Amino acid sequence: MTSTESPVRIAVSDAPGQPERTADLDALYRRFEDELLVPLWTEIGDLMPAHPTPAARAHLWRWDTLLPLAGRAGELVPVGRGGERRAIALANPGLGGAPYATPTLWAAIQYLCPREDAPVHRHTQHAFRFVVAGEGVWTVVDGDPVAMRRGDFLLTPGWRFHGHHNVSDAPMAWLDGLDIPFAHQTGSGFFELGPDTVTERATPARSRAERLWAHPGLRPVSSAGERTGSSPIAAYRWEHTDQALTDQLALEDEGHPGVVEPGHAAVRFTNPTTGGDVLPTIRAEFHRLRPGAATATRREVGSSVFQVFTGEASVRVGDAAWTATRGDLFAVPSWQPLTISTRSGADLFRFSDTPIFERLGQDRVQTEGAAR
Amino acid sequence: MTSTESPVRIAVSDAPGQPERTADLDALYRRFEDELLVPLWTEIGDLMPAHPTPAARAHLWRWDTLLPLAGRAGELVPVGRGGERRAIALANPGLGGAPYATPTLWAAIQYLCPREDAPVHRHTQHAFRFVVAGEGVWTVVDGDPVAMRRGDFLLTPGWRFHGHHNVSDAPMAWLDGLDIPFAHQTGSGFFELGPDTVTERATPARSRAERLWAHPGLRPVSSAGERTGSSPIAAYRWEHTDQALTDQLALEDEGHPGVVEPGHAAVRFTNPTTGGDVLPTIRAEFHRLRPGAATATRREVGSSVFQVFTGEASVRVGDAAWTATRGDLFAVPSWQPLTISTRSGADLFRFSDTPIFERLGQDRVQTEGAAR
Amino acid sequence: MTSTESPVRIAVSDAPGQPERTADLDALYRRFEDELLVPLWTEIGDLMPAHPTPAARAHLWRWDTLLPLAGRAGELVPVGRGGERRAIALANPGLGGAPYATPTLWAAIQYLCPREDAPVHRHTQHAFRFVVAGEGVWTVVDGDPVAMRRGDFLLTPGWRFHGHHNVSDAPMAWLDGLDIPFAHQTGSGFFELGPDTVTERATPARSRAERLWAHPGLRPVSSAGERTGSSPIAAYRWEHTDQALTDQLALEDEGHPGVVEPGHAAVRFTNPTTGGDVLPTIRAEFHRLRPGAATATRREVGSSVFQVFTGEASVRVGDAAWTATRGDLFAVPSWQPLTISTRSGADLFRFSDTPIFERLGQDRVQTEGAAR
Amino acid sequence: MTSTESPVRIAVSDAPGQPERTADLDALYRRFEDELLVPLWTEIGDLMPAHPTPAARAHLWRWDTLLPLAGRAGELVPVGRGGERRAIALANPGLGGAPYATPTLWAAIQYLCPREDAPVHRHTQHAFRFVVAGEGVWTVVDGDPVAMRRGDFLLTPGWRFHGHHNVSDAPMAWLDGLDIPFAHQTGSGFFELGPDTVTERATPARSRAERLWAHPGLRPVSSAGERTGSSPIAAYRWEHTDQALTDQLALEDEGHPGVVEPGHAAVRFTNPTTGGDVLPTIRAEFHRLRPGAATATRREVGSSVFQVFTGEASVRVGDAAWTATRGDLFAVPSWQPLTISTRSGADLFRFSDTPIFERLGQDRVQTEGAAR
Repeated sequence: MTSTESPVRIAVSDAPGQPERTADLDALYRRFEDELLVPLWTEIGDLMPAHPTPAARAHLWRWDTLLPLAGRAGELVPVGRGGERRAIALANPGLGGAPYATPTLWAAIQYLCPREDAPVHRHTQHAFRFVVAGEGVWTVVDGDPVAMRRGDFLLTPGWRFHGHHNVSDAPMAWLDGLDIPFAHQTGSGFFELGPDTVTERATPARSRAERLWAHPGLRPVSSAGERTGSSPIAAYRWEHTDQALTDQLALEDEGHPGVVEPGHAAVRFTNPTTGGDVLPTIRAEFHRLRPGAATATRREVGSSVFQVFTGEASVRVGDAAWTATRGDLFAVPSWQPLTISTRSGADLFRFSDTPIFERLGQDRVQTEGAAR
Repeated sequence: MTSTESPVRIAVSDAPGQPERTADLDALYRRFEDELLVPLWTEIGDLMPAHPTPAARAHLWRWDTLLPLAGRAGELVPVGRGGERRAIALANPGLGGAPYATPTLWAAIQYLCPREDAPVHRHTQHAFRFVVAGEGVWTVVDGDPVAMRRGDFLLTPGWRFHGHHNVSDAPMAWLDGLDIPFAHQTGSGFFELGPDTVTERATPARSRAERLWAHPGLRPVSSAGERTGSSPIAAYRWEHTDQALTDQLALEDEGHPGVVEPGHAAVRFTNPTTGGDVLPTIRAEFHRLRPGAATATRREVGSSVFQVFTGEASVRVGDAAWTATRGDLFAVPSWQPLTISTRSGADLFRFSDTPIFERLGQDRVQTEGAAR
Repeated sequence: MTSTESPVRIAVSDAPGQPERTADLDALYRRFEDELLVPLWTEIGDLMPAHPTPAARAHLWRWDTLLPLAGRAGELVPVGRGGERRAIALANPGLGGAPYATPTLWAAIQYLCPREDAPVHRHTQHAFRFVVAGEGVWTVVDGDPVAMRRGDFLLTPGWRFHGHHNVSDAPMAWLDGLDIPFAHQTGSGFFELGPDTVTERATPARSRAERLWAHPGLRPVSSAGERTGSSPIAAYRWEHTDQALTDQLALEDEGHPGVVEPGHAAVRFTNPTTGGDVLPTIRAEFHRLRPGAATATRREVGSSVFQVFTGEASVRVGDAAWTATRGDLFAVPSWQPLTISTRSGADLFRFSDTPIFERLGQDRVQTEGAAR
Repeated sequence: MTSTESPVRIAVSDAPGQPERTADLDALYRRFEDELLVPLWTEIGDLMPAHPTPAARAHLWRWDTLLPLAGRAGELVPVGRGGERRAIALANPGLGGAPYATPTLWAAIQYLCPREDAPVHRHTQHAFRFVVAGEGVWTVVDGDPVAMRRGDFLLTPGWRFHGHHNVSDAPMAWLDGLDIPFAHQTGSGFFELGPDTVTERATPARSRAERLWAHPGLRPVSSAGERTGSSPIAAYRWEHTDQALTDQLALEDEGHPGVVEPGHAAVRFTNPTTGGDVLPTIRAEFHRLRPGAATATRREVGSSVFQVFTGEASVRVGDAAWTATRGDLFAVPSWQPLTISTRSGADLFRFSDTPIFERLGQDRVQTEGAAR
């Protein structure tokens, strides 16, 4: 490789600890570039900052913008083999135009027209759906039809064949979350096509997975010893999420523990075979703030995406601030301080890449300046 | 210690591999006894058999016998400090009169008269209650009142203060299960008294523990990182257990997996923070057999106790066989082959010491002669 | 079962909380006995004491007594099929003459005459050997010959075929430790015969297991993902144990941490695939006290057995106290306070059943009155 | 954000499943770009390929090139506060000039002149050193001086203060490996300065960490319950690595298992508190091939870097092939097939990011076409 071909360009600066600039040094740097070498001393400030300084930026996408654009795509872009899904991804403005909400997370609005099918495939990337509004679509996961309804959180763990079909006369849109950026950056994803259409067309109210697994504290003896990497619960229904949040706030009213902090109830979606996160790479939670409540300011290693489900939330992420309402999505980069408050109350869905850092012992959280 | 005081008596036999009996050998054996020594060669047949040959025996206790005797105790024996509980334990006939249903498990009928209190205490021994019939008692666990109703499975993990009180005008009886024999034999139990009466007298339909934890696949974010040794769910309600069993049999009807074997649905009560057993030493399950169904013959390391909840079951344990009906309890010793069948259908609650053996890697199961 | 056959005898006492003694009560108790029932209220004081009050007693067995008796057995008792081993077990005086050093642990002196074989068998009970003196025997574990030498700690994990043979012209004696009592009481042991003689007669200085596994912090890539229940290291050699203890005391001299407490170095034998105990049910350690050192007084849940390797130790266990020297063995029951001190220095081997309690979350330790 | 500022540019192609190109579609795509949105259907081929198609490329860096350039840097670039280290990183030609050997791994040659110090700092990024030649430097980790010598593998787990000093009259160079790229991409690294010079200047042959922890199968009782995220062994010495490899090949000669495959011995450096990898994000191994041996062709999820320690290796990675000798380093991207063979024998050090994928359940290996 000659110097003109090398991608390496050594940046000379006045940063502390830099050697005196001389012709000899320049010649050495040219040699480094030729040989695909980069000094630590010119890069350390960017590479190893005192705390994370992510390229990703805090950003808000409005549902009122997203939904009509998705609807327009519904008119212009067919769903089928090759394109696979009518999904439109959030592209974080700090990540060079890549379809990444954060360095690790994919977030997209997916849109299915009436009576439309999305073809069957599988991939090692882990996926979930969250439904901010609507119903009428069934996602079929390894042959098990799973109804998608408002407020539901639905799982498609890695390497399960899945397709969707809309049995209703109305279009339906929802949020897709995956670890596509993480898999892509680390070179760890596999993909395989299945049938072009969904063959299992039953539309039960509850999936088979729920009938086996969505009973509180119970598991089938037939698979009682297993610890699966991802949750076997295909759908976490809104009625249960809502009840759990309602219970937490009622306990707070009665003077008992349970809420995260005053006026702030929250549940985590979990894998009943382990008690841990639903997917190996993705954490999912639902948060409810009472009218007038505010969260502590909190920062943590890893990035997350929120979607407002109901109400109105005042959000501050580092220097950015917005008022977010139903369907709005925002990205929170690693170690950016986040505060959410609300005048009239708000429900928010959240997902993050925290399990990656917890499993690697790299998680860190700081609340109101007090690290723990 | 002189020979006359020594508890050691060496048994001479014709078992294979025994040395020739001589005066010298007898003299040596006397010396062994004096010095508190026992040869392996005289004992190995009993100590290390080819497979477990437990002293405990298969045995059935009839609810129709137990309940009147407990009622009679209600008339003659007050509940109070010192005696602590009006609990009457099953004593396995092979265990020398000790109040042990099996070498590791305690099973007792507990009885509380109308308006009666059982005083508060705590112990490291783990406890549960199972309610075959009745209602009206609240067990208060670390200040959290837990209603006890027919079909419910209730937990009192080790070292939690707990007392009971009957708020109704009828007596109530239920099954208590604990690991008292295991703790006693291994010298690992601690006990502490609390108040003489139950001070928290609210009678809510759901405990605070349930309101925080008994939502399928959800956990409070406020304690989301914890893995607790015992389940935080204070009560597993009959409506959920019944629904899960009903779902399994419906799935079987539809041709899908889920049941243990044809006509046999079963759920395990689990700790939602780990996906494992509810208590470190005790497994608890609920089994439902359709009319006409029969289990495979199965033996496993460790012992268990069953209680029939509804219906009629034909039970065979080794050479013993009974027909058991509502409330009847039977003990299954380690490695004894067990078969249950039913003409008209049966629901059975089961608990066992299997977690001990699984955690130590000593578990073994054999079904229909095929070890796995 | 009639009353005369029942093993149950209800003990009436003046303990607190007992009901008034009446003819009716006596009649009820007779009925209980007939029906194999035992009240909690008459038993709770013994069954559930404030802290463990084990039946096992602190006791010392002198090596100077044991070794000649084992030698006499060498003259009178052949080793062979049926008797299997010339092993003579310590029988705790509190355990009714059973060959149990403690309720869970077996400890025996095993003795092999010159040129003698002990036949091959296997059992699920876990075993180790510790060599207080001598050499010349190889134990062959699943075909791998393992030299036994002074100071070595050797493993025979459960269900591995093993036999021993003495290739020297001198007899050899050593300590065997197993979990036979635990397996027997809980009905969890299996046993199987192998060949009558040891067929693999090579006498290498290092076993194959050591050549693969006994390198500090290294493991073979060929089995690098495995976590085995027991350690794959067949022999922990004295030279390594001695070096580790010497290093700890030298670090103490230099002012650095490492020792357990002043003047007290100790290492635990571990499973390199997990970092945990060598066997699922048995912990093994080696302790070295400098001249003049004394341990804190410590009690813990679970029982242990010590053997003095060198030097002289003043031992106090509850109310018992001895001076123990080379080869002497003593049993420490659960929760009995233990203090060891030494004028001239002492090395002690120790094994215990602690892993059972740690895995079940029932472990508890109290040092100098301060529980942790 | 206006369209001219948006980093998003939607690429239109003829890939399968693309919508017909129309003015309306173009208008929609412009709107997507304005709103920071990217369709899945235009990107899926690159984002979610059938198997990993990493941007990183297989590449070889020659030690004979690296060492003189590092030496030249020794003349021109002082080591000190700000630049922190005279480390020169390998920049993978597929990664745009970033100082990343692979998407997750940093590999650099570090060079210290005679009597020179590298200042003290700490960072959450995990580090190791491997010494292909030379000696005379001590790395001081949290106050513990660790000698660096030929063949040694040395650890600096995350968040430990560390500096280096060269006590000899010769320069010394070595390989540094870290997870800097992973931490940078995911925004998870923290960094803190310590003293400008190394204050602990003792030069012991063994570190305190080794004296406590580098005894086969033994751990200090004083910290016996701990499971640490990284290995406490500061240095894995060449004499042990060499012995373990020698033993494996001797076992192969004797017909016993142990080697990875014929003629190929390998050990993994492990954390003795867990049996797992030395660092949460980095696996390290040492491989030895006999003269004439060849590895199977193997591909796996995740990337690795090899350094030849002795001998000569013919390496094939996908379409690339080199003959590598002492000190040469090569990068193996994810899922690229790797084969190594040698005429005269070769020793190779290897490190990889496999623990990341194993902990997330994303690991996959394929050998000779047979996935397992």
